[in-house]
Amino acid sequence: MIAAVHFSERRHAWAVDLGGTNTKLGVVDDSGRVVVQEAFSTRPGRGGDSWAEEAAEALRGAAARGGVEADRIGAVGVGAPGPLNVEGGVLTNPLPNLPGWQGFPICRALANRCGKPAFLDNDANVAALAEHWVGAGRGVDNLVVLTLGTGIGSGIIADGRLLHGMSDNAGELGHLSINYRGPRCVCGNRGCIELYASAPALVRLFKQKLRRRECAARKGRSVTAEAIFEAAREGDPLAREALEEVGRYLGMAVASIVHALNPEIVILAGGLAGAAQFLLDPLREVVRERTYPDLQVGLRIEASTLGAASGLVGAARLALREQSSQRWT
Amino acid sequence: MIAAVHFSERRHAWAVDLGGTNTKLGVVDDSGRVVVQEAFSTRPGRGGDSWAEEAAEALRGAAARGGVEADRIGAVGVGAPGPLNVEGGVLTNPLPNLPGWQGFPICRALANRCGKPAFLDNDANVAALAEHWVGAGRGVDNLVVLTLGTGIGSGIIADGRLLHGMSDNAGELGHLSINYRGPRCVCGNRGCIELYASAPALVRLFKQKLRRRECAARKGRSVTAEAIFEAAREGDPLAREALEEVGRYLGMAVASIVHALNPEIVILAGGLAGAAQFLLDPLREVVRERTYPDLQVGLRIEASTLGAASGLVGAARLALREQSSQRWT
Repeated sequence: MIAAVHFSERRHAWAVDLGGTNTKLGVVDDSGRVVVQEAFSTRPGRGGDSWAEEAAEALRGAAARGGVEADRIGAVGVGAPGPLNVEGGVLTNPLPNLPGWQGFPICRALANRCGKPAFLDNDANVAALAEHWVGAGRGVDNLVVLTLGTGIGSGIIADGRLLHGMSDNAGELGHLSINYRGPRCVCGNRGCIELYASAPALVRLFKQKLRRRECAARKGRSVTAEAIFEAAREGDPLAREALEEVGRYLGMAVASIVHALNPEIVILAGGLAGAAQFLLDPLREVVRERTYPDLQVGLRIEASTLGAASGLVGAARLALREQSSQRWT
Repeated sequence: MIAAVHFSERRHAWAVDLGGTNTKLGVVDDSGRVVVQEAFSTRPGRGGDSWAEEAAEALRGAAARGGVEADRIGAVGVGAPGPLNVEGGVLTNPLPNLPGWQGFPICRALANRCGKPAFLDNDANVAALAEHWVGAGRGVDNLVVLTLGTGIGSGIIADGRLLHGMSDNAGELGHLSINYRGPRCVCGNRGCIELYASAPALVRLFKQKLRRRECAARKGRSVTAEAIFEAAREGDPLAREALEEVGRYLGMAVASIVHALNPEIVILAGGLAGAAQFLLDPLREVVRERTYPDLQVGLRIEASTLGAASGLVGAARLALREQSSQRWT
């Protein structure tokens, strides 16, 4: 009986989702269930070591609260803003999110304090792992996750494996240009899809539409992407138009992505995926028009089903996958 | 002594490079050396089986001419126009190159007639295998080969493995759009790089320049891409301008490709690579301007060193790689 109980015990991982503003962390089991989660302010100004101290403390606390013994936790998985070095577990140049953290060996800092190996990947790759594991991309070997927020990132899984590229910078699909004569982007390029279909782009587009209609009553209000989602849900035609336009722009980038990578599913994640109901139809229509029929067979374009949990779930997957040759019983 | 001689004997593969006009084929050894090669007219109108009969006959003849015994040939590798099914060894829809060949089981047809297993991939993927094996991408795990000809194709190797996508259609980078409001492409999209930087695009661009300068003397001449290369080499400023403009357009697509895939090398192959001396500088300049510095570290953009042999060499690689678990002594 005891052996049977041991056999059925789940493995767990510590998961960390590091952002410039908040750090989310928790304990996730090997079915992808978030057992405990909490958050604290990252406060990047204090530097990485002080942050790691607080994170390790919080991870231990989370395990205790979840009733998970430390010896059933195999590793720590971390999703963080790039650019970073996966193999070395180092944040190489995490600007503008974490100024002063260039070169911070986050894996070593956490492993030393937690007594477990730590594994790192960028937040968009971690989101792709989560979708592939227990989300909209479950069981799919070729998928692209677009994280739509302040910027646009992406994680690409091809033939079942995350694409990293030469220096772990693959998947910067926000800097796929849809217009070589378009507006200038911080990356140096022009017309990057990030300039047409991120949260700031949505707000800009909506404001343009407001001005065009001379809707003085609204003009002064501070407009956020969330406020536009809400207005769209309440039936506001301008908000819907703006979201549909963003959906069409996304479709133009997705058409190129589909030709490049021939994925089975493209998943919208991140803040803007909250408005997927308004984005998806125009996006799909553009892809239908602009993609070779052979590449459309079996192709799906869907919203993430994981929402905000995706960062922790994917970080846990990273830890559990990397540790899969070990056993903790 | 006899054992030593056997040990040093090279393995060989039969290689086939199937095009809509000509079929090239030959015997290639496991160092990537083309031992024998020949060619015949494909004549697609007669159908696949008649073609396979001629190809098998020619392969046997090539082995005999090269003094390579059949038992030292492990397999047949085939590069062909897509779309195709790699696993099944079938040309699913090879239009417009091979009308009437839809669904032709080319691997079975060749394997039956040659008495060896046959392996298939599309011509751009085969070119990428060749570059990765013995060309400009030797020893590089992340590379993109752009085949620049009547159209633009590509083969992508990521983390050492060819990308195939869900249905073997990955790598259609010719249909990466650089301008969502650009001219309409056969794929349904607008502004595909193929419309700006293929051989027909070069010819169109050159003719526009001619007209603009009202150079009546030349206007009537039939202009080919090769003629433009030659004129550029002779110092013709219009020809050079046209090629440089094509190079800049290519740079715009390559900037997006680099952000997406973070390759170590991007290799120009196909007919237009013959004019690489005029294309490369403007291409590299645009990529330098339009790509995140992190992604430029270690990045090289080069012309293929294999030329027309790349199809046979890559097809042989396909055969030798797929057969690598077998021994032929």
